Amino acid sequence: MPAASPRAVLLLSGGLDSTPALAIARQQGFDVYALTVQYGQRHAGEVAAAQRIAHHLGAAQHLVCNVDLRQFGGSALTGDLDVPRDRAREDLAHEIPVTYVPARNTVFLSLALAWSETLGTGDIFIGVNAIDYSGYPDCRPEYIAAFERLANLATKRAVEGACPVTIHAPLIDCSKAEIIRRGLALGVDYALTSSCYAPGADGRACGRCDACRLRRQGFAANGLRDPIRYGDGTDAF
Amino acid sequence: MPAASPRAVLLLSGGLDSTPALAIARQQGFDVYALTVQYGQRHAGEVAAAQRIAHHLGAAQHLVCNVDLRQFGGSALTGDLDVPRDRAREDLAHEIPVTYVPARNTVFLSLALAWSETLGTGDIFIGVNAIDYSGYPDCRPEYIAAFERLANLATKRAVEGACPVTIHAPLIDCSKAEIIRRGLALGVDYALTSSCYAPGADGRACGRCDACRLRRQGFAANGLRDPIRYGDGTDAF
Repeated sequence: MPAASPRAVLLLSGGLDSTPALAIARQQGFDVYALTVQYGQRHAGEVAAAQRIAHHLGAAQHLVCNVDLRQFGGSALTGDLDVPRDRAREDLAHEIPVTYVPARNTVFLSLALAWSETLGTGDIFIGVNAIDYSGYPDCRPEYIAAFERLANLATKRAVEGACPVTIHAPLIDCSKAEIIRRGLALGVDYALTSSCYAPGADGRACGRCDACRLRRQGFAANGLRDPIRYGDGTDAF
Repeated sequence: MPAASPRAVLLLSGGLDSTPALAIARQQGFDVYALTVQYGQRHAGEVAAAQRIAHHLGAAQHLVCNVDLRQFGGSALTGDLDVPRDRAREDLAHEIPVTYVPARNTVFLSLALAWSETLGTGDIFIGVNAIDYSGYPDCRPEYIAAFERLANLATKRAVEGACPVTIHAPLIDCSKAEIIRRGLALGVDYALTSSCYAPGADGRACGRCDACRLRRQGFAANGLRDPIRYGDGTDAF
């Protein structure tokens, strides 16, 4: 009987980063337990995208965890502020935008840590990247290292030495263009993904928020057409 | 016009530790924003206790955040396992029990961090203690220090230098008996609190789980009677 594959928990938003991260975890031989957090985001189509992608890439299980971060306020992504549009690339790289959600990745990684412990694994994947990352503090390598250190003090299994925690962030040093290429090489169908911060009522991406702009620039840099539909009539971008 | 009081977020379970922690934060001059997490615990009477205590001790606001940790499994407190009873004091101090909830304090502190950032404060209180702590890894000083370090890398305000995060754990070195005394000196009414891991259908404490035993030993060490009602007929303990 072959040995069972090792397990990993992966945070899956259904977007352009977590999807290839899932493909990478599968390529590395992990049985992937995908966790999507429904936190009150405007772009709730993420959850449906995550479900499609978990199936497409063969996740062993997919859980959706509800935690309403709207009650804490303070972010354009949860409805308090307007989502900015048509921002220049320089601005994307050098300031923390209003789409920042307070402590989001800390909440997400904490939930992944809880599940990983009951699954008996210390391997957690997150698709953050620090290059085209829109300036979020909780996407930086030093933040990921600090969470890993915390996790190894936080859980029963880690403290008992049974299961050291490793936070895998395989895309942290990649540009959006590189992320897209890595995913394509692993068979990712980007038509299933969803990135837009403020999709229209018909579910189509706006084409103008930071997430849409970074995404489209990433496909363009590869000489490719983004396969998703845009509501602004620029599908053929 | 007097300067506004500084704000602090405090994790409030309604139990024997977080209640005096709230009284201490108030004594230190903070306007306290109390956060109770309803995570699917068996002892849901905690939330009602927390509401009473927030009012009793003059919290500026009280939020209840729902996040269902039951879906991750792995703890007696969320229904997977039986709550142990009548354990010896030596066992309480030297092993991590099944009432441990995977990554609970990491999830709780992450949510407190999210709220603190939108409130514009870096002060977060948690009533953990490492002496009579039932052996939970996420109640130790090194864990709290690691979370503080993480938090200062995680949030927009902290990274921008506007608002360094401090995790206050004023009871971390106290025994249960000392915690009870400190609360009494600050006017805490312990009749409002709720500690039992497995209360009866009538809401009364069982008197036999680790939480009840530590609590009653703490009152007894002070020569006091615990003012709450017990379902095992030992109210006059």
